[in-house]
Amino acid sequence: MSEKLNRLKEILGEVSDLGRAASVLGWDQQVNMPPGGGEARGRQLATLGKIAQEKFTADEVGELIEDLKKEYTDPETDEGAMIRVAARGYEKARRVPSSFVAEQAVAAAKAFEAWVEARSKSDFSIFRPYLETNVELVKKYISFFPPAEHPYDVLLDDYEPGMKTAEVREIFNDLRPKQVALIKAIREAKQVKDDFLRQSFNEQKVWNFSEKIIAKFGYDFNRGRQDKAPHPFETTFSVNDVRITNRFEKHAPLATLFSAMHECGHALYELGGNPAYERTPLESGTSLAIHESQSRMWENLVGRSLPFWEHFYPSLKKTFPSKLDGVSLKNFYKAINKVEPSFIRVNADEATYNLHIMLRLEIEIGMVDGSLDIKDLPEIWNAKMRDYLGITPPDDAKGVLQDIHWSYGSIGYFSTYALGNIVSAQLWEKINKDIKNLDDQIRKGQFAELREWLRAKIHVFGHKYDPQDIVKRVTGSKIDSAAYVRYLTKKYSDIYGL
Amino acid sequence: MSEKLNRLKEILGEVSDLGRAASVLGWDQQVNMPPGGGEARGRQLATLGKIAQEKFTADEVGELIEDLKKEYTDPETDEGAMIRVAARGYEKARRVPSSFVAEQAVAAAKAFEAWVEARSKSDFSIFRPYLETNVELVKKYISFFPPAEHPYDVLLDDYEPGMKTAEVREIFNDLRPKQVALIKAIREAKQVKDDFLRQSFNEQKVWNFSEKIIAKFGYDFNRGRQDKAPHPFETTFSVNDVRITNRFEKHAPLATLFSAMHECGHALYELGGNPAYERTPLESGTSLAIHESQSRMWENLVGRSLPFWEHFYPSLKKTFPSKLDGVSLKNFYKAINKVEPSFIRVNADEATYNLHIMLRLEIEIGMVDGSLDIKDLPEIWNAKMRDYLGITPPDDAKGVLQDIHWSYGSIGYFSTYALGNIVSAQLWEKINKDIKNLDDQIRKGQFAELREWLRAKIHVFGHKYDPQDIVKRVTGSKIDSAAYVRYLTKKYSDIYGL
Repeated sequence: MSEKLNRLKEILGEVSDLGRAASVLGWDQQVNMPPGGGEARGRQLATLGKIAQEKFTADEVGELIEDLKKEYTDPETDEGAMIRVAARGYEKARRVPSSFVAEQAVAAAKAFEAWVEARSKSDFSIFRPYLETNVELVKKYISFFPPAEHPYDVLLDDYEPGMKTAEVREIFNDLRPKQVALIKAIREAKQVKDDFLRQSFNEQKVWNFSEKIIAKFGYDFNRGRQDKAPHPFETTFSVNDVRITNRFEKHAPLATLFSAMHECGHALYELGGNPAYERTPLESGTSLAIHESQSRMWENLVGRSLPFWEHFYPSLKKTFPSKLDGVSLKNFYKAINKVEPSFIRVNADEATYNLHIMLRLEIEIGMVDGSLDIKDLPEIWNAKMRDYLGITPPDDAKGVLQDIHWSYGSIGYFSTYALGNIVSAQLWEKINKDIKNLDDQIRKGQFAELREWLRAKIHVFGHKYDPQDIVKRVTGSKIDSAAYVRYLTKKYSDIYGL
Repeated sequence: MSEKLNRLKEILGEVSDLGRAASVLGWDQQVNMPPGGGEARGRQLATLGKIAQEKFTADEVGELIEDLKKEYTDPETDEGAMIRVAARGYEKARRVPSSFVAEQAVAAAKAFEAWVEARSKSDFSIFRPYLETNVELVKKYISFFPPAEHPYDVLLDDYEPGMKTAEVREIFNDLRPKQVALIKAIREAKQVKDDFLRQSFNEQKVWNFSEKIIAKFGYDFNRGRQDKAPHPFETTFSVNDVRITNRFEKHAPLATLFSAMHECGHALYELGGNPAYERTPLESGTSLAIHESQSRMWENLVGRSLPFWEHFYPSLKKTFPSKLDGVSLKNFYKAINKVEPSFIRVNADEATYNLHIMLRLEIEIGMVDGSLDIKDLPEIWNAKMRDYLGITPPDDAKGVLQDIHWSYGSIGYFSTYALGNIVSAQLWEKINKDIKNLDDQIRKGQFAELREWLRAKIHVFGHKYDPQDIVKRVTGSKIDSAAYVRYLTKKYSDIYGL
């Protein structure tokens, strides 16, 4: 049996190597590649993806998994978990013909171009036929799988293994009215001033400050680096080489600090992985939502907290004396937590962000189950914006066309962002029970105990437990928005005197 | 037939993609990778290499080549040339068992470690057993091939397809006494002063100046970039993404300029390739010697010439007024061409460099044909240094242990450096016949006609012609040192008043 296990590990190790080689190529594409390199890079990535897929879906892999399944039945053992996760991936991958993967890639490339044009002209009708094709392809993808409770379950499962549409809907339905009510209350309260955040800050100094923060978080620059890229992201080449990117935007200079903390949160998850899981299906974080719970925790629950800035604000003021002179800690804290309903999801504050996601989830479900006509999307979008946030997008670019996701046929992804926020607050309550003086530690710039808690409870398990299972294991309950509501209510009651 | 050709191209295209993906990983390793990333990177590169090898040596490839060989018999056509080059590579690759490749890699890794220790302690005896193993493995490698005129032919052929040991020996035997005599004459002449080159120069300004020069040469920063790395090198990710690295050494600050020109010469060869050859065996330069002829031409025949500095010296002086104040153009030109026998090959000047190579070639041949006992290497090395250069290395580190090549079992490589010098001068004579006012152009900082000549005569052909064939095609004669002797004699007669 151990011979078969070794053979399976050998093949899956190569599949992992190919995937991580592709990640290096992808990172280089964003960070370093001269413009001329794009065409060949696309081909190289396609080849790596094709070979990895061929290796992973080979008959031999299926036979090995079948044999090993009978032997390693306990999912609490690493071998059992590995075979369970490999089997699920294998079964999925075998259901989808490679010709379909190619068809979808071609459609995505065309739809992406149309989306770029449509967004620049703020005209949904340009994008509409391509979105219709993408949705048809997504339906075809769903048809490769056994009928689910809801067709959207098939999509969701690719990002949140084991999670059902009904569960997400229930969580969101519970949360939505509370967030809508909170925003209304905030709108009626005295508003927060944040104009000093939009001054001109020295880029290099902001960058250095961002690295000072994440070094304190425990990001190890011997096992990673931060580079400039058009969009912030985290990428993993191995448990000992986890890189992040960041950017500097003149109109929001301090956003760089929060992006660094966010990506560092992702990176700590990967850096905290079990080295023994390297090159197996258990490597890396278990789902996008759990990943996002880590990034949002470091960005928001830590990085936008008062104790955090009690520690860092004096040195920030020292770094930018002329900019922050006369701005008290309290007012700085309020400014970086200002709530203001706005059109663009990626710029949304903590109180409004999830509502952007819920809107998208409802539209995605409607597109997939056919209850919604794609031609009506702009209207539906704008109506929901009014209902949830009380504002109406002035045009499609600031409305239905703002996100890239649908252009490349990615449907099922969005809810993971909101789930990540929700999980971060659940974990935070549990952490604060386990680490009684966490606020004091943060106030002193000490993050080791928090980081090691996350590592021991979540990071080291990699893919071993599905998202709902790891949340239950750690907090005692499944994913549930109550903690997030408590967190938001307390925070904004203090800030806005509700 | 065209179906078979397409299938062969498809497979070879994937092999190329894998190789170039590996180049990206290798570049990143030198330029960006945090220390922690090394272990996994080694595994990833091994996997890419293994898969490429498996794909290339598959039975199907051999069958396709056999069938296509009968159809495409004219090597002047691209298809004919492609199949010829593919067949040669395939036949070689099939002869070498993958278990041997793995054995050699393991031995190389151990030998490399021993070499690092031996060099740091300047003690050849530490490295000796590992070198003996490496040489045994090289002999085993040779045994996989049909008996050649000389066993060393097998090794040479991997770097210089079609070239024989006897040919190289003849070229070198002709050249050696002339270079030895030249060096003697120079030693007896009035020496050149170059102490002002060893002042402290601002690193960023030198770096910027190097990029100013190569931009003028025609290095396109939209299709490449220059980064810092421990050693200068050129690497190709596609015909539109050809990168170079460089370094700054405090003890030789202007060496950065010449390294940039050298690597730019390699890069222009790759950037000038025929895009139609991409992802086929015809992509990239045809051999190391021809590649080196390009790098050495831009570095030496252009970059260390008087016309070149007539153009660039005024702006160099402007960039470093306090450093070069009072140094005339003529004295600067003399200083960057100073001849001084020295121990370390990579620091050698144009007049002495080839002698370092000849010494190595003779030792390599002796190791391979058994006429030399490896335990005697330090003595043999030092005796040859006395004969050729008139100096005796004070220790093994500055003698037999200085080069990395033998540590990783690379034997057969060295002569390509000297052949490159020789070919560069042959091409230069021909170019100056075709472009009558080349010196005037260089004096004006114009390099386009030179670059396009090289492109049309050499670069676009990629691997289509073997090294001897392309030299013959362009200059009318095979590789021959006469032009190089004329070049050296004229240059140093002027500088040293011989």
